[in-house]
Amino acid sequence: MTVENLSSNKSFGGWHKQYSHQSQSLNCAMRFAIYLPPQASRGQKVPVLYWLSGLTCSDENFMQKAGAQRLAAELGIAIVAPDTSPRGSDVADDEGYDLGQGAGFYVNATQAPWNKHYQMYDYIVNELPRLIESMFPVTDKRAIAGHSMGGHGALVIALRNSEAYQSVSAFSPISNPINCPWGQKALTAYLGRDSATWSEYDASVLMRNAKVSNGGTLVPAMVSQGEADNFLAEQLKPEVLQAAAKVSGYPLVLETHEGYDHSYYFIASFIEQHLKFHAEHLR
Amino acid sequence: MTVENLSSNKSFGGWHKQYSHQSQSLNCAMRFAIYLPPQASRGQKVPVLYWLSGLTCSDENFMQKAGAQRLAAELGIAIVAPDTSPRGSDVADDEGYDLGQGAGFYVNATQAPWNKHYQMYDYIVNELPRLIESMFPVTDKRAIAGHSMGGHGALVIALRNSEAYQSVSAFSPISNPINCPWGQKALTAYLGRDSATWSEYDASVLMRNAKVSNGGTLVPAMVSQGEADNFLAEQLKPEVLQAAAKVSGYPLVLETHEGYDHSYYFIASFIEQHLKFHAEHLR
Repeated sequence: MTVENLSSNKSFGGWHKQYSHQSQSLNCAMRFAIYLPPQASRGQKVPVLYWLSGLTCSDENFMQKAGAQRLAAELGIAIVAPDTSPRGSDVADDEGYDLGQGAGFYVNATQAPWNKHYQMYDYIVNELPRLIESMFPVTDKRAIAGHSMGGHGALVIALRNSEAYQSVSAFSPISNPINCPWGQKALTAYLGRDSATWSEYDASVLMRNAKVSNGGTLVPAMVSQGEADNFLAEQLKPEVLQAAAKVSGYPLVLETHEGYDHSYYFIASFIEQHLKFHAEHLR
Repeated sequence: MTVENLSSNKSFGGWHKQYSHQSQSLNCAMRFAIYLPPQASRGQKVPVLYWLSGLTCSDENFMQKAGAQRLAAELGIAIVAPDTSPRGSDVADDEGYDLGQGAGFYVNATQAPWNKHYQMYDYIVNELPRLIESMFPVTDKRAIAGHSMGGHGALVIALRNSEAYQSVSAFSPISNPINCPWGQKALTAYLGRDSATWSEYDASVLMRNAKVSNGGTLVPAMVSQGEADNFLAEQLKPEVLQAAAKVSGYPLVLETHEGYDHSYYFIASFIEQHLKFHAEHLR
């Protein structure tokens, strides 16, 4: 497998790097970014936080705007930021910003034309961690986090793969996609009109049904939500997630913050809290 | 005068806001951004750091990528980020990224067609601080800083207006524009071929000739430079600035950093040091 290094920037004593590789799951070339803290340059293996971005984003938004590297350097955590969908001129797309390229929703599409490339769930759960763990000085301890569509992705992936992640967190996640316009549009396109198949990609349904099984544990979850977020009532619905956690007794901490919106200014303001939460569980 | 609020984002307990206003100096509408720390919302007047960005930038680059708000909130400093040139369809431009819109070089142009709008020196030194001090709960204590072309601008403006600034700092400044390709191209266009007129916009010339006068003091200066910066040898020439400081005994601290490049990843890594430097002098 060819993996090409596209850029390297020293950052807080560590390195931000972008790579391109041919993805088997997605059947196209994919770019991702990794921040390697200074500990990694000194030969120490570090745990990895996977960050899933929101609609329209690439690997760059979080790395440039969240201000996460300072804490990642201090805590000794690598951060991996994949793209939000398959990309390319031969990859199916839609003119809306909320479907197609930049809007993969972290599902495995079953419907044409999407199913040829849109297998983001497999990419994030299986292919990407295998690649990261083979290429970089990292341990097999993983955490996962994301924003908006990426918050949905992070919660769903942690809820369905509790053995693989130590902790999960989300900013402003699409908490109940089967019941909001963004989610219904994407799930109809990628999975088809039969909404019975949608539930395995709905964090609120999964959290409501979560059970400790096989001696495992539930992945501790933290969610931060701005109260001045324009998408709060129609698209995000954190109250549905919170009610689901109450039913199953899920270890969810949901905090709301007065005055904050849906932007990276909100994420930057609270990323320190999220990284410290993950660091505690990655130890 | 009409000033229009374009956006507001809560950030680290304070507010990031963008405004548009009709500039008298520049003869066009201008956008700027301000970060107001939480102290300002509590009725406390705060000092102001003016941040001048580099080639191709707007008011957004620093606010989105430098991670400065955390420290500004902690230290109680407002940050103002103006645009890097006049803008608009009737404003002279050039196809190069290093001349015209996005590349005002913080000079007062004397040559047509540039002299109609390109009066960035007057805008930053006079018009913008007057506007800021009339609109926001700020004191008249000012600091100034910038990156690359903006580092040049910050140094020149502080050196020529020592009564108006408590401190100045720069990342990767164009330290000797009269002797580098970026500077020579811009100064020729804006000021004309007679290079005798260029020196008043050259930080190294000004620093070499700096003298304490009228019982005033020299503005303390800090410069940070990445050693892996692609523009270091040809365009930036910090060694000329350092030699100039030696001649005049100017209070300049220049630090170089192994492995860092010209990007905002470098700025973000050391912005805390710069903000603490300014905070000490703004007290």
